Amino acid sequence: MLTETITTQITNALKAVADCGTVTDIFYVACGGSYALMLPNQYAVERESSSIAGQALNAAEFKARAPKRLGKGSVVILCSHSGTTPETVEAAKIARAAGALTISLTHVPGSPLDEASEHTINYTHAPMSMSAEHSPAVLARLTFGILAAREGSKLVVDIDAGLAKIGGIVDKAIADQKEAIAAYAEAHKREPVIYTMASGANYGPAYSYAICIYQEMQWIHSACIHAGEYFHGPFEITDFDVPFVQLVGVGASRSVDERALAFAQKYSQRMTVLDAKALGVDEMPASVAEYLQPLVFSSVLRAYADKLADAKGHPLSVRRYMWKMEY
Amino acid sequence: MLTETITTQITNALKAVADCGTVTDIFYVACGGSYALMLPNQYAVERESSSIAGQALNAAEFKARAPKRLGKGSVVILCSHSGTTPETVEAAKIARAAGALTISLTHVPGSPLDEASEHTINYTHAPMSMSAEHSPAVLARLTFGILAAREGSKLVVDIDAGLAKIGGIVDKAIADQKEAIAAYAEAHKREPVIYTMASGANYGPAYSYAICIYQEMQWIHSACIHAGEYFHGPFEITDFDVPFVQLVGVGASRSVDERALAFAQKYSQRMTVLDAKALGVDEMPASVAEYLQPLVFSSVLRAYADKLADAKGHPLSVRRYMWKMEY
Repeated sequence: MLTETITTQITNALKAVADCGTVTDIFYVACGGSYALMLPNQYAVERESSSIAGQALNAAEFKARAPKRLGKGSVVILCSHSGTTPETVEAAKIARAAGALTISLTHVPGSPLDEASEHTINYTHAPMSMSAEHSPAVLARLTFGILAAREGSKLVVDIDAGLAKIGGIVDKAIADQKEAIAAYAEAHKREPVIYTMASGANYGPAYSYAICIYQEMQWIHSACIHAGEYFHGPFEITDFDVPFVQLVGVGASRSVDERALAFAQKYSQRMTVLDAKALGVDEMPASVAEYLQPLVFSSVLRAYADKLADAKGHPLSVRRYMWKMEY
Repeated sequence: MLTETITTQITNALKAVADCGTVTDIFYVACGGSYALMLPNQYAVERESSSIAGQALNAAEFKARAPKRLGKGSVVILCSHSGTTPETVEAAKIARAAGALTISLTHVPGSPLDEASEHTINYTHAPMSMSAEHSPAVLARLTFGILAAREGSKLVVDIDAGLAKIGGIVDKAIADQKEAIAAYAEAHKREPVIYTMASGANYGPAYSYAICIYQEMQWIHSACIHAGEYFHGPFEITDFDVPFVQLVGVGASRSVDERALAFAQKYSQRMTVLDAKALGVDEMPASVAEYLQPLVFSSVLRAYADKLADAKGHPLSVRRYMWKMEY
């Protein structure tokens, strides 16, 4: 039963983290779109923490890999929208048995993941909008809350300030992009292959768009190319008619994105470019804009997906295998 | 000037690791195919080390991310075949300036990466064969040598025993696969999209095959799908005519591979399956077979690539952009 507010749930989970004897590792464990939400958090821990190692793993891989560092010094953060993903529920049980502190995100109170975890946060779900209570925002609040609790990081204050603005930023960005979104949908409705490309914290939303939107929901072949890896293999498939959706971020990895974009734009006539600056990401505090930009990209990309689905006559809800059979 | 043997170079690098005050992190830093070689090493550190965190990063991402844990407690292992990859050379300089111990692999003595690093190992290069002096073997010897030096791990003995057999295993596997390789090449020579799939330690060679062979050397659209992620998005693009090359490994993640294979084989008629057991990987000590199997897969996959290139009349050496222009 949901009796606490989301903020109270987060506060309680962070109090447990503060009361831990030691924290050496944060494992971020989930599958698919939920796994993609974890990637910017691993990125943030690596950039900001001197004493904690962060690692995002697919839940089946987590079980198989059985990280030797998993134990009493570990916080394991898990996410499953339905709370029923078997691999993620099992990962929570494994983590808890190893003595780790488990904190789970799910939309469904009372779900198996909720039951399996010590702390649960029941986030808000509403695509094409964003708030401090959406799942990726809850993850950022947890990550920077842990860094505050364990290392005295002050960035959580800026995270909260950024999240207070993010709803308005996303609404405006989607409204501003209306014509670009319509043009993209018409131009790509018959494409058999569309790549996504990003780096840094934005690899997560670009990966999610490739595997959850293109492959899963639109049956379009895709891969998420890391912009730094692009020049060491993938760029050879670039040609005038090969479409890419590229995210250009703010912060440390922007130059990596810009280098890939400069090349790709020269040889492909099919680039769709989403620039964090044009989407208003810079209205958030500069100290955390790079960590929160994936939330803006993912919401805006969902608007791109929605319109593409309309143009193709292939609703985002259609599946041929998922939820329809045992697998 | 190459005056030391490869084994002496490794021994000297490991002596420096043993003499370090502390080692909290190993960063594996490279680009493209060399980055792919790093992934099984991150995997091994996560499975086997209780005190050291392992992290593989593209070199441009490493520079941008600027991990806060990078410092005197870090060993940074880098690789560039030519020793001239600018991002990797720069990463070595950044790591060294931060106080980390730098160990580089390159085929070219006196190259910029050699010059930038404290220790260099000049590995043997000969595709479609394998030995203890090939680059992925040198990486395994370093990784398990570090675990021996810092944590007393005994596995390096089994690594050496496995590497003593691996040349023969690879030669036999390629000979045994001759008909399968010829059939694969003919069946795939006109395919515009071919996926690869793997999990665990074998994600590295499957990623390399997708980005270096298909995208770079054959101009075929591709993505490496993690077998655990497959069910959370990518599996929806599976159809009777969609080709996959799947690696089925030995060890902890085999069940992840088998689950994906069982589904994919049901809905695609175009599965090419390479099973580590059929390739003779089990002849190596069971304690390390899962860590050394990527070396067998990558060598056998190169034989698959060679034959595909013949069937397409598109040599593996052809490029349209790489080495031909500034980028």
